[in-house]
Amino acid sequence: MSDAAASAPTPPGGPKGGPAYAARLERAAVAAADSGLAGLIVTPGPDLDWLTGYRPPVTERLTALLIAPGTRPRLLVPALERPDAERAPAASALSVTGWSDGRDPYAALAPLLDPKGRYGVSDNAWALHVLALQRTCPGVSYGAFTEVMPMLRAVKDAYEVERLAAAGAAADAAYEQVVGLRFAGRRECEVAADLARLLREHGHSQVDFTIVGSGPNGANPHHDAGDRVIELGDMVVMDFGGLKDGYGSDTTRTVHVGEPTAEERKVHDVVREAQQAAFEAVRPGVACQEIDRVARQVIRGAGYGEYFIHRTGHGIGVTTHEPPYLVEGEHLPLVPGMCFSIEPGIYLPGRFGVRIEDIVVCTDSGGRRLNNTSHGMRVVA
Amino acid sequence: MSDAAASAPTPPGGPKGGPAYAARLERAAVAAADSGLAGLIVTPGPDLDWLTGYRPPVTERLTALLIAPGTRPRLLVPALERPDAERAPAASALSVTGWSDGRDPYAALAPLLDPKGRYGVSDNAWALHVLALQRTCPGVSYGAFTEVMPMLRAVKDAYEVERLAAAGAAADAAYEQVVGLRFAGRRECEVAADLARLLREHGHSQVDFTIVGSGPNGANPHHDAGDRVIELGDMVVMDFGGLKDGYGSDTTRTVHVGEPTAEERKVHDVVREAQQAAFEAVRPGVACQEIDRVARQVIRGAGYGEYFIHRTGHGIGVTTHEPPYLVEGEHLPLVPGMCFSIEPGIYLPGRFGVRIEDIVVCTDSGGRRLNNTSHGMRVVA
Repeated sequence: MSDAAASAPTPPGGPKGGPAYAARLERAAVAAADSGLAGLIVTPGPDLDWLTGYRPPVTERLTALLIAPGTRPRLLVPALERPDAERAPAASALSVTGWSDGRDPYAALAPLLDPKGRYGVSDNAWALHVLALQRTCPGVSYGAFTEVMPMLRAVKDAYEVERLAAAGAAADAAYEQVVGLRFAGRRECEVAADLARLLREHGHSQVDFTIVGSGPNGANPHHDAGDRVIELGDMVVMDFGGLKDGYGSDTTRTVHVGEPTAEERKVHDVVREAQQAAFEAVRPGVACQEIDRVARQVIRGAGYGEYFIHRTGHGIGVTTHEPPYLVEGEHLPLVPGMCFSIEPGIYLPGRFGVRIEDIVVCTDSGGRRLNNTSHGMRVVA
Repeated sequence: MSDAAASAPTPPGGPKGGPAYAARLERAAVAAADSGLAGLIVTPGPDLDWLTGYRPPVTERLTALLIAPGTRPRLLVPALERPDAERAPAASALSVTGWSDGRDPYAALAPLLDPKGRYGVSDNAWALHVLALQRTCPGVSYGAFTEVMPMLRAVKDAYEVERLAAAGAAADAAYEQVVGLRFAGRRECEVAADLARLLREHGHSQVDFTIVGSGPNGANPHHDAGDRVIELGDMVVMDFGGLKDGYGSDTTRTVHVGEPTAEERKVHDVVREAQQAAFEAVRPGVACQEIDRVARQVIRGAGYGEYFIHRTGHGIGVTTHEPPYLVEGEHLPLVPGMCFSIEPGIYLPGRFGVRIEDIVVCTDSGGRRLNNTSHGMRVVA
């Protein structure tokens, strides 16, 4: 064998502060019907974890949860993983069926599908499985959740907002400590290792990214952290996060080693103003793309429009990238409970970059930040 | 931002013992043509890593390598990741194109595809991307690599066999040390932690699974490792592996705490005999399912047929599960250079389990084991 289930402890379902799996399953079925879908096909990963607490290995063997309005959710699993599936937190709300090696799992799933129905499937379902289902059930059609049901996990309940706030506070605590450490003379990857250690010390079970982009490396938004030695006079973009108690953190601050120049201050001020303007534009009913436009307008107005080369933000929950996306063309309106990043940036090729990022939750009265460290450009040593 | 590229060092391409990316790209194009495909669409993960050494984050933003016979391979990436893509080990053999947030990446890929062609796609390509491509290019059809090109990575060259042998030797060394440790009175997860530590000490950069199934837990083939305290008299299945220098290890041995009973010995002997018979059946031209049948026949002949509840094996390379699969219905013939597990088992529900697993490479003259620790049932303390 070769697949180890990622079997981190999962809080029990139910009303006492844990994930309410049964309610989520029910809500998903209703949402599917409302979207005109015959049902949902959920594969291992964040969707299945969110709906059932079950975290099987992601492999070539099909595991699929079928949710169809008016029926009991059914979980089809490789026979050899059935004992694990039957111990899933939401198992009491599911019918678990096993299929054996050498049999066709798609033929096992087919009779459960409406032969002319349309189904939502997990974004990250493997092509191997989706193409085989299409071959087995040629009358069925499929749409990825982000396309056909972007709202499935987008609106967080109070329990989830609390988890995201705790993850944000932990990331903030890591930031407050890292800025007290030495930067000049150390390599980016050393600072990144400090960030990872601090995130774990503040309760993260998983560190997903610790970007440290110094000097010209800061102008590459997805630069990870390398061997470059940080120098006096560098701008340093730090973008870091992971999972704490199953929910994500993601924050960015740009610091300066020693005193910044007037131009560096100006670029930082523009990004700070763009982030603030976008934050203030958050309220229910505003289209996602509008938040992106507000941030972009500030940066364009200052003459740096061509250097803001990515969208303004992405949703966050049990993953660090999920709907809603704050990007031109996204007409989805903000709804109280949506949690997302607001992270404008300016990237001057070969010179430096600036990005400021907070996680924000939309409330009835506007945005609430889940990251609360200062937006001022900290001078580090 | 939220995606950190897994930027472990990758050996340079070329003839001096590193992966020969240019040759692999060329071989893939020829294989696509031979399979009647217009080309291949490769997404982040093991296929892209194997072909180019590029390891971008796996996200909702499309990254796709298009390989079409007679043309230069083209890598389409999110614009903000372009600097990383242009530093990929195989970058000199690729044309890199960026697409920007807010634009439609599928519309960018569409003009590069034969509008009526059939393409192979990575098994793990996301449904989000495949369904969007189908919508954008309705005349194009798709098949997952395991279905339409199972041989793409199945036959390993001398460099790859050497890497797999080194990974196997490291796993063997970990086993030889773990059996000298205390079992009785410790929890399964403590032994699993020892195995993970030992794999790392012997050069693994990544530990993927450390199954420790004691007593009745051994009867669950995918049991991970839990809180059960191992006792005198327990059978203990240990199945562990990960990646060393980019290639996988995966081996299983079943040990006994103190002296085994006659029945425990018998079951272990049957599994050992099945593993040996399957190993001896390995030679070029034999169908994969035949190896499964040979192992199954031994176990069935001993009266335990219903307790061997999984296939006999799976290929291994830059992943720990890949074609060829040794399973009933798989008619693919063995070819020299194929590397795969042979891992029969017997699982007696509520009592105990036994599994013995080696990685084996098919050579011109038969099988060669890449795991070489004794198959005898070790008695541990």
